[in-house]
Parts: sequence; structure tokens; C-alpha cells
Amino acid sequence: MTRIGIIGYGNLGRGVECAVKYADDCELAAVFTRRNPADVKLQLQDVPVLSVDEIEQWEGKIDVMILCGGSATDLPVQTPKFAQMFNVVDSFDTHAKIPEHFKAVDEAAVKGNHVAIISVGWDPGMFSLNRVYANAILPDGKDYTFWGKGVSQGHSDAIRRIKGVKNAKQYTIPSQEALEAVRSGKNPELTTRQKHTRECFVVLEEGADATAVEKEIKEMPNYFADYDTTVHFISEEELKNNHSTMAHGGFVFRSGKTGMNKENSHIIEYSLKLDSNPEFTTSVLVAYARAAHRLAGEGHKGCKTVLDIAPAYLSPKSGEELRATLL
Amino acid sequence: MTRIGIIGYGNLGRGVECAVKYADDCELAAVFTRRNPADVKLQLQDVPVLSVDEIEQWEGKIDVMILCGGSATDLPVQTPKFAQMFNVVDSFDTHAKIPEHFKAVDEAAVKGNHVAIISVGWDPGMFSLNRVYANAILPDGKDYTFWGKGVSQGHSDAIRRIKGVKNAKQYTIPSQEALEAVRSGKNPELTTRQKHTRECFVVLEEGADATAVEKEIKEMPNYFADYDTTVHFISEEELKNNHSTMAHGGFVFRSGKTGMNKENSHIIEYSLKLDSNPEFTTSVLVAYARAAHRLAGEGHKGCKTVLDIAPAYLSPKSGEELRATLL
Repeated sequence: MTRIGIIGYGNLGRGVECAVKYADDCELAAVFTRRNPADVKLQLQDVPVLSVDEIEQWEGKIDVMILCGGSATDLPVQTPKFAQMFNVVDSFDTHAKIPEHFKAVDEAAVKGNHVAIISVGWDPGMFSLNRVYANAILPDGKDYTFWGKGVSQGHSDAIRRIKGVKNAKQYTIPSQEALEAVRSGKNPELTTRQKHTRECFVVLEEGADATAVEKEIKEMPNYFADYDTTVHFISEEELKNNHSTMAHGGFVFRSGKTGMNKENSHIIEYSLKLDSNPEFTTSVLVAYARAAHRLAGEGHKGCKTVLDIAPAYLSPKSGEELRATLL
Repeated sequence: MTRIGIIGYGNLGRGVECAVKYADDCELAAVFTRRNPADVKLQLQDVPVLSVDEIEQWEGKIDVMILCGGSATDLPVQTPKFAQMFNVVDSFDTHAKIPEHFKAVDEAAVKGNHVAIISVGWDPGMFSLNRVYANAILPDGKDYTFWGKGVSQGHSDAIRRIKGVKNAKQYTIPSQEALEAVRSGKNPELTTRQKHTRECFVVLEEGADATAVEKEIKEMPNYFADYDTTVHFISEEELKNNHSTMAHGGFVFRSGKTGMNKENSHIIEYSLKLDSNPEFTTSVLVAYARAAHRLAGEGHKGCKTVLDIAPAYLSPKSGEELRATLL
């Protein structure tokens, strides 16, 4: 049995709670929160909710802590801090800052003699795995990653910061034409604009200037200026009723050549179609929590990513069972 | 540098020769054959071809031997034999006999203090990996594997053994309808007949009875009786011109549920579209040869499968580079 703790009870925390329910060899031991524990109502009844300040008392009682905070400000502090006390798994997803995060977590985990697995989820995570496998197999080739259709939290936030905007959701949508060109082996050179479109659903403050808001969205550098962007103005009620989906997904392709004269083409495609982004992410987190527990049991320590962990560690089945049934 | 040896110079041997060409950190050291070495002409000029009887003289001069024989009779003998002398990688693909093969190879490799990686390729191989990852992430779900469109060697051979048949090729074709049902999350229960169809191109001996041959094919137990099978009679020339493709591919799906009440569905799809089955298989073999060399360098020994090896071992890039570029 792997005794799992949750730190932070938002969408990810709730997702871990669900995922543990379906993992027969895992149990949820406790949930830690920065809020008043009395204010946190779990979906499952019989698990204690505690203040994160009491966490040290749980050393030795929890095999793996799953960190469910955000990548912007929570995880850069929490993962190194708690890796000194526990085996930990996080879903740190700021790609550009992974090397820095890895270094801080590795130092802490080595010091604490624990295993830490960072950047677990689907991108980074399962998409990364697929990029690495496919690049190793087809060294002469091209990579393509598409995201969506799904809500981008970062882009929605960027719209919400515009003056006159009350609320907003932004969908990232992969271009079907681009997907088909890649899938058919055409190896297209795709600009940012050709890969994805962006669709925005915006609720205005009373008296706000719709034309000005639309212009500001469409011209926003980095976020929207390089994309074909559509803006719809809707009511708060419509936003709530029709745009609270957590669905997401995406595609990773590698298109490569083999043969003495590069005469043969190959396409490797991996795709996800997810009803719930946080529940899928946390399902991956729980599988890697199992791996962290096992690795720690074998005497490993320090920071790892999904690239450093053999697939068999994620499965509750033994090597013998896996070879007989899934190999 | 990983110095690679090839044992057996057929389609797979030629494929390894190509794959090594694109792997900057690998070099082909020698090719070993059971034929008269003078009769074997390589695609690359500057590599020695030797009799497999001389192989013992190469101990210490080759980092990994890639075994390019067949699963029916070659590999069950060769892999355990050569694992005592070298690190080895094979593509043993008789799923039902993997546990037995693993045991024999493990004993030999441990005795010889070498690393052996068996059942490397795409199924078993990349498809197996995807089944294991997806099962670990979505414990509550269903697996689907489809093969094709591509020539099945086993089914083609079965047709060739029929009296009156001079030559034959058999294509395994996944049903588009079944694929779409799985992809859309319908979780269909599919019979063998609903998943794949079989198309046969047959050259008859002079005077053979076409009707009798067609009946014998369609009623052949295990191979064809459970499928919708189409038989075309063609000339030897037509077979040679239009049906010598080595293209293949396939799809692995897992369709699973999450949520407190299983309210959310997720589809994981992995697919391959390959111009050359042997060249893709050998590209995977060479990536795992790199892993075998590294694992042996770290002091590992014994038999492993793709499930036991972390993705990072397959890549020529360092952990640091991988985290910065592909994670």
C-alpha cells in the first residue's frame, strides 16, 4: 500500500482524491491545506484535513506527498521544502523553468534522503515521454505538438486583466488542416498562426467598450497577436453554463525518415482526448506516486522526471504479470 | 560510442545497418552470418562480414550485439547463447512465449554478466509501453490494439502452405468503423471479425483449383475463419510489382473513466504509420542497444524488456539537455 498525502485542495487535490479511489494499492492518508481545515469539505468522508503547519508530525506516516499547488508561486517554494521531509510528486509545468526547479528540488531531496518526481502530468509528462521516445527512434525527423481543444488558464487570465473585462475563457484550438498535413507525412513548416487558433468568450463590465476590448485582446503580444483570434461577448450566466468545461487534449507527432537514402517515412502519433484536464493530470500523478514509493524503497534519492523512470514502476502489476499480459 | 554487431543479415540486419547510420553515437563494428561471408554484400562498404563461428573472437570488441534472426527458431537459441558473451538486444515477438524466453535469456545474461533486452520493436515494444503507461494512468478502462494496414508474414506463410498456391501476400486491415467507435469513446465490445479484415493476393500453381484454394483459405481455423477475408488471384509479376511493400502500422487505445462517479471519459491513442516495418523495428532496436550499453556500463546485468528501461536511456542527449529541450 502507498499512503498518499495531498497538499492543497483545489481542482488537482480533488482529482488526486478521485484517482486514489481507483488505485487499489494506494490510500489517501491526509489532506493538508493553508486554509482553515474546518472550511475544507472533501468528497470522501473518512480522511483527515489538517493545517499544512502540522505537516511535520506526519513524517513516516505518509509514503508520498502529492503537491497540488500552482507552478507560478506555490511549487517553486513547496516542492523543495517538502522534499526534505517526504517523497514528493509535483506537476510543475513552466517548461522554461524546469532546469532551475529540478536543481532546487534535487538538492532538497538528496539532503532529506527522499525521492522527488517533478513535472508530472501530460505536458510536461506523457507528451514529454513521447517526444523523447520518438526522437530516440527517429533521429532524422521533425516534432510537432498541438494542444486543445481546451481552455488555457494563462490566456483566460490575460484577458481578465484587461480593463472593462469582468470574466473570460479562452480556448486553444489546433488547426485541423495543420494536423492533417502532419499526419499525412508532408512535414510542413508551420507558423504559430497556422498551428492553433484562439477563441475567446468574454463578459464585459457594465459600460465597457467592446470594440476597444476586442482590439486589446487581438493585439496582445505573445498571447494573441501571432494567432487568428475570435472574440465573443456573452453574459456571465452563459459563461457559467456553457464554458465551465475542464476538457482538454492534444497531439504529439514525430515524422521521420529511415533507409540508406532516406527513402522511407514514418509517423508516430500520440494523442489525448480528456473530459477533465485536472482528473487526467492527477491520474498520472498517482501512478508516479506509486513509482516514487517503490524507488525510495529501493534506496534511490534525489529529483527525477518522467524521463528517468521505467514504465514498469508505474504499474501495480509485477514484472512477471506485465510480461505475460501487456508486453 | 556504442560499437554494434549484427547477427543475421536479412531485412532486419539491413535495417540495423541503416539505423546505425543515423545514430551519431553508434557505429557498426561487424556483421556475423551463418552463410558464407563472401556471399553477403552489405549496403555499407567498410564493415567486415564474418562467420558466426568466429564470434567469440569479438568479445570485448563489440558493445552490443543486435540479433536479427526470427522468433520461431533462431532467437530462442541465439539470444541465450550470445547473452553469455555480449550485451544483446532482440526483437522476439511470439507474445505467448515471452515469459519462457525471458527466463532462458535472464539466466544466460546473469551468468555472462551482460545486459540483454528482449522483445524490442513496436509490438511487442512501443505498443507494449503504451499499454502499460495507459493502464497505470487509467486503471478503470478498456484496451484496444489494431494492426495494419500491413502484410502479415505469418498469414502469408499459412496461405503459401496450401496445395496449389505458388506465392501469396496477406494484408491485415483495421476496420475504420471499429477505429472510429473506439476513438469516439463508445467503448464498443468488438469481436475478432469486427476489428480487422484480411485481404489475400494469391498466385496459383498451373492447373490449381482456384475455388478450392479460396475455400481452404477462408475456412482455415485461427488464421482466417474468424475474419471477413477477401481473396484475389493474381500473376506472379503483379504480386512482385504491387505487393512487395513493407509498410505497416497500427493503433493502441485506452479508453478510461475518472471522477467520483466515473463521470469523465478519457481516450489515449498511440499510432504508427510506417513505410518500412523492418526499418522502424531496427530503429527501435538501435535505440535500445544504446540503453543496453549504458546499463551495462552502470553495472546492471540480466534480462530486461522495454518496460524495465527509463526513456532517458534511449536518447543520446544528457538528462540536462533532455530536461531543457524535450521535457
